[in-house]
Amino acid sequence: MQFNIIRTDSNARACLFETQRGQVKTPAFLPVGTLGTVKAMAPEELEDMGAEMILCNTYHLYLRPGHEVISSLGGIHRFMNWDRPILSDSGGFQVFSLSALRKIEENGVHFKSHLDGSMHFIGPREAMDIQSALGSDIAMVLDDCPPYPSSYEYAQESLKRTTRWALQCKQLKHQEQALFGIIQGSLFQDLRKRSAEEIIDIGFDGYAAGGLSVGEPKEEMHEMIYVTAPLLPHDKPRYLMGIGDLKDVMLGVEAGFDMFDCVMPTRNARNGTLFTSKGKISIKREEFKADRGPLDPECGCYTCKKYSRGYLRHIFLSKEILSMRLNTIHNLYFYLHFFKDMRESIKEGTFHSFKKKWEAIL
Amino acid sequence: MQFNIIRTDSNARACLFETQRGQVKTPAFLPVGTLGTVKAMAPEELEDMGAEMILCNTYHLYLRPGHEVISSLGGIHRFMNWDRPILSDSGGFQVFSLSALRKIEENGVHFKSHLDGSMHFIGPREAMDIQSALGSDIAMVLDDCPPYPSSYEYAQESLKRTTRWALQCKQLKHQEQALFGIIQGSLFQDLRKRSAEEIIDIGFDGYAAGGLSVGEPKEEMHEMIYVTAPLLPHDKPRYLMGIGDLKDVMLGVEAGFDMFDCVMPTRNARNGTLFTSKGKISIKREEFKADRGPLDPECGCYTCKKYSRGYLRHIFLSKEILSMRLNTIHNLYFYLHFFKDMRESIKEGTFHSFKKKWEAIL
Repeated sequence: MQFNIIRTDSNARACLFETQRGQVKTPAFLPVGTLGTVKAMAPEELEDMGAEMILCNTYHLYLRPGHEVISSLGGIHRFMNWDRPILSDSGGFQVFSLSALRKIEENGVHFKSHLDGSMHFIGPREAMDIQSALGSDIAMVLDDCPPYPSSYEYAQESLKRTTRWALQCKQLKHQEQALFGIIQGSLFQDLRKRSAEEIIDIGFDGYAAGGLSVGEPKEEMHEMIYVTAPLLPHDKPRYLMGIGDLKDVMLGVEAGFDMFDCVMPTRNARNGTLFTSKGKISIKREEFKADRGPLDPECGCYTCKKYSRGYLRHIFLSKEILSMRLNTIHNLYFYLHFFKDMRESIKEGTFHSFKKKWEAIL
Repeated sequence: MQFNIIRTDSNARACLFETQRGQVKTPAFLPVGTLGTVKAMAPEELEDMGAEMILCNTYHLYLRPGHEVISSLGGIHRFMNWDRPILSDSGGFQVFSLSALRKIEENGVHFKSHLDGSMHFIGPREAMDIQSALGSDIAMVLDDCPPYPSSYEYAQESLKRTTRWALQCKQLKHQEQALFGIIQGSLFQDLRKRSAEEIIDIGFDGYAAGGLSVGEPKEEMHEMIYVTAPLLPHDKPRYLMGIGDLKDVMLGVEAGFDMFDCVMPTRNARNGTLFTSKGKISIKREEFKADRGPLDPECGCYTCKKYSRGYLRHIFLSKEILSMRLNTIHNLYFYLHFFKDMRESIKEGTFHSFKKKWEAIL
């Protein structure tokens, strides 16, 4: 994986990385394809709107349909008809956030499926095996993601485990797959620093900040974003996991992060909350009933070119599948173009005014 | 509306009719766009698979979002981004089948909305006004659709009302809209004959057989199809309303009907029942779990070209929106190509063997 910094604007970076399946320009937003489909979208629609990489969830795909099934169906790319890069998470976050019961041991986690209550085990070996079977382009190490709030003692324990697991994952790394390390340490600056040192010491193709956006106050999240970014190597991609609120994203970019993923644009779309150049709107509002105008006159997406607000309101209230499609197309287009414009602003050295403008709108 | 019979094969007909919004080749299948969207589809997808006309439901659109709203949004075509022909039903069938409470009077029907229990009234004038506001290319007269079973006396009453309403609809016909009459008469041959005579006497742009597929035994439905078709003018389109089981469709075509609509392909798709060149299959079956093959190797649709049975099973079981999309694309493509092939067989004088072949498969 080749990684080049094209231009910086203060700490914000416009980079390019080359994978075996194509280029990814950063700052990059990765739409989330939890179960092997970005909800409501066909892969060609994602390509058309400029998505260059997506994320799939190891935990979900391990439970359904199972990594062996995906492997026997030709791997995750062929399985889901997407031939651009895919990043798989390690399953760690979902094991810690979704499964009802979990027991952490030194060599991994026992957990109960949120689907049928069956018991499972994922350790560094399993996480690497599953991701290898999926055939993602970028794999993530298995990490121990402490909840908010966590005591210093627990965060320290968890950090140590994360480092041990990262080392084991590195030893099991597959040649054809890039592997990113994950920095933990909860909201403790010194633990973040120690985690970064230990993980960088092992050496990975990229580095992620994990354990944020787990319920902590925004100010604390922002502080950790600013603390963690400069700890990470300059010459590798930096990934701020699970952060997708665009104000937070801009802070992340300002701090020096390159990659972001979040269900926000897709989930909001299905709930009728849509992003526009004037801010968020709820499409169900009465005022849109007979509104002939497009959702966002400044948007060039299929939804805005072809449908009125009145129609979008009607199909949303009628719970039509097309509503989820059109809303998702719009929100993802908005996000991807927001990232594109943000990159341009970095290349032009105007990121600061880009950020200021959007902070007033969002 | 120009209507030309291109070729007949016994009583089966291959016709062409020209509307202001384009050609429709028959036998024609009209996908159902109940609320102003063919469920799970974007209009361009329907065009790509060769749909030439769709049906919208007056009853549903009257209740949501209301015909005045659609009118103020530029009419049904612009509303839903479909510029090919649209046929609107009159609302009669849904008033009789969906609404909880109804009171039939000489000048129309009082009924209770199935959505919120509010009271409404539709008579011939209202049915014509609503369809005019929608701006459909073909409107249907308001008919009284008797349930199954109905007594001879009730069927006769209902027939008389249907004729009176048809006359009133004719008097209110809008120049820019074609208007089709509807033959009722329940399962009584003499009443079907009388209804046809009275409706033809009024004179319409096309003729439909209504009141079938309402719960009667298949043999009785088939008998009525054979009885009704020859009663209808040779030089006008003949529409067999609400019939979409392909065996019934072939009987209808054999009898001389030209147009068909049904929710079967779209509804079945959402339930995971898929049509193939070897018969119907349920995609959720365990045997498809790791099946790399396409749904139907003989099918040229997007779903069959791009996805494996294993993937289709996985996203169906995971209740993903893409599952409803891919299944619907496949089933509608199957239907539209079935109709296309049926038309070819009529043009080549081989409809009988087409029918025989498919009766063995279906």
